[in-house]
Amino acid sequence: MPDVRIILVGPKFEGNVGAIARLMANFDFDDLCMVNPCEIGDDAFRRAKHGSHILENSKTFGSLEEALDGCFLVAGTSGTITRGPTNYARIPMPPEKFAESVKDYGEKIALVLGREDIGLYQEELDRCDVFVNIPSSETYPTLNLSHAAGIIMYELFGTCHTTPSPEPADMREKELMFGFFEDLLDAIDYPEVRRERTALMFRKMMGRSIPTKYEYNTIMGVFGDAAKGLKGGKEPE
Amino acid sequence: MPDVRIILVGPKFEGNVGAIARLMANFDFDDLCMVNPCEIGDDAFRRAKHGSHILENSKTFGSLEEALDGCFLVAGTSGTITRGPTNYARIPMPPEKFAESVKDYGEKIALVLGREDIGLYQEELDRCDVFVNIPSSETYPTLNLSHAAGIIMYELFGTCHTTPSPEPADMREKELMFGFFEDLLDAIDYPEVRRERTALMFRKMMGRSIPTKYEYNTIMGVFGDAAKGLKGGKEPE
Repeated sequence: MPDVRIILVGPKFEGNVGAIARLMANFDFDDLCMVNPCEIGDDAFRRAKHGSHILENSKTFGSLEEALDGCFLVAGTSGTITRGPTNYARIPMPPEKFAESVKDYGEKIALVLGREDIGLYQEELDRCDVFVNIPSSETYPTLNLSHAAGIIMYELFGTCHTTPSPEPADMREKELMFGFFEDLLDAIDYPEVRRERTALMFRKMMGRSIPTKYEYNTIMGVFGDAAKGLKGGKEPE
Repeated sequence: MPDVRIILVGPKFEGNVGAIARLMANFDFDDLCMVNPCEIGDDAFRRAKHGSHILENSKTFGSLEEALDGCFLVAGTSGTITRGPTNYARIPMPPEKFAESVKDYGEKIALVLGREDIGLYQEELDRCDVFVNIPSSETYPTLNLSHAAGIIMYELFGTCHTTPSPEPADMREKELMFGFFEDLLDAIDYPEVRRERTALMFRKMMGRSIPTKYEYNTIMGVFGDAAKGLKGGKEPE
């Protein structure tokens, strides 16, 4: 995981700060800094839930420059993309691409989020190496501060963690199951002309669903018993 | 964009419902249904901001089954992944993969989100075709309801929208700039033995940053003027 400091510049609602502390706990971040924030009281701690230790350990500064101390890369965020070829300060990088690009970065990264109403000032954005922007609706692009923070943290976390999956079926198990499916087609006297296509269709369906070992074995049992029962002239008990 | 109905089952905090309405406006969704929700009052509308029309047009039902009417695919969500090969109901699909898999789905999809505290009941999850789970911290995996909703909607939106970028420099412009960089190396009598490597290094740096047409032209101008000035024996005015 990249080592990320979340820096909130001038947050106005303590509820958002609390929600961000919770999200940081959800995504294994713990370095929270604020620049001239609103008062942080009960509402922030109520919203932080099991992330309250992050709120307790957060640091407050009088300027962005001080909060950036020790950071090697500065990523700023804003909901506003100003178009036009000369606007090099706001060439947006989507969160997914940003997360991928810093995945193996070995030094401290600052993720700077601006005020709820007006975001970061131009001079604050100018201080950033990268400008991260979340793709959103043309009619209402402005996300709530904590939701924007959550989405970027989700990408940073997700890029470094794969979702564990149950053990998949191996080739031999899959072939066995396809065999049983063909036995079933036999047993119901499935029209010869369509048999190959249907068997192939079933194989492709299974390919798309990527079943687990357990699922393959269960379905194989069902087909096997059904084919046997049909061949014996009756449904199995 | 896939046609998605957001279904909130038993939400307990109207603030979360409002935040979700706002997120729906942020990501161009507008079909919100609720099953036995808490009372929806001022706090919800305050949090919904420019998504208040979604809240106004939302529908309330007495059962999940009624809310699902007209949906072809049902995606359930939960913060809890129960491991083990026999637990086929909770094989998790990360939001990114889910978004990719329904990108071109032509019929209505239900995205079902459960209660803040206990999520969806087992029988509600059993009703779902897909189980979407957001990868998160092992120590504190439970996201706030609206943040979970936001992340899934972000993926659904992002999969169908590319971030517009300023016009990139074309091959001819890039070669011109690399030429000017080599002129600059000439002009400062850069050591012959390292010249080729440094020119290549510069090319790779530019490759990683993917500059725009405007940026290339600006940098090209700087190098060109500097090389000319140096060759003339003095810095340009």
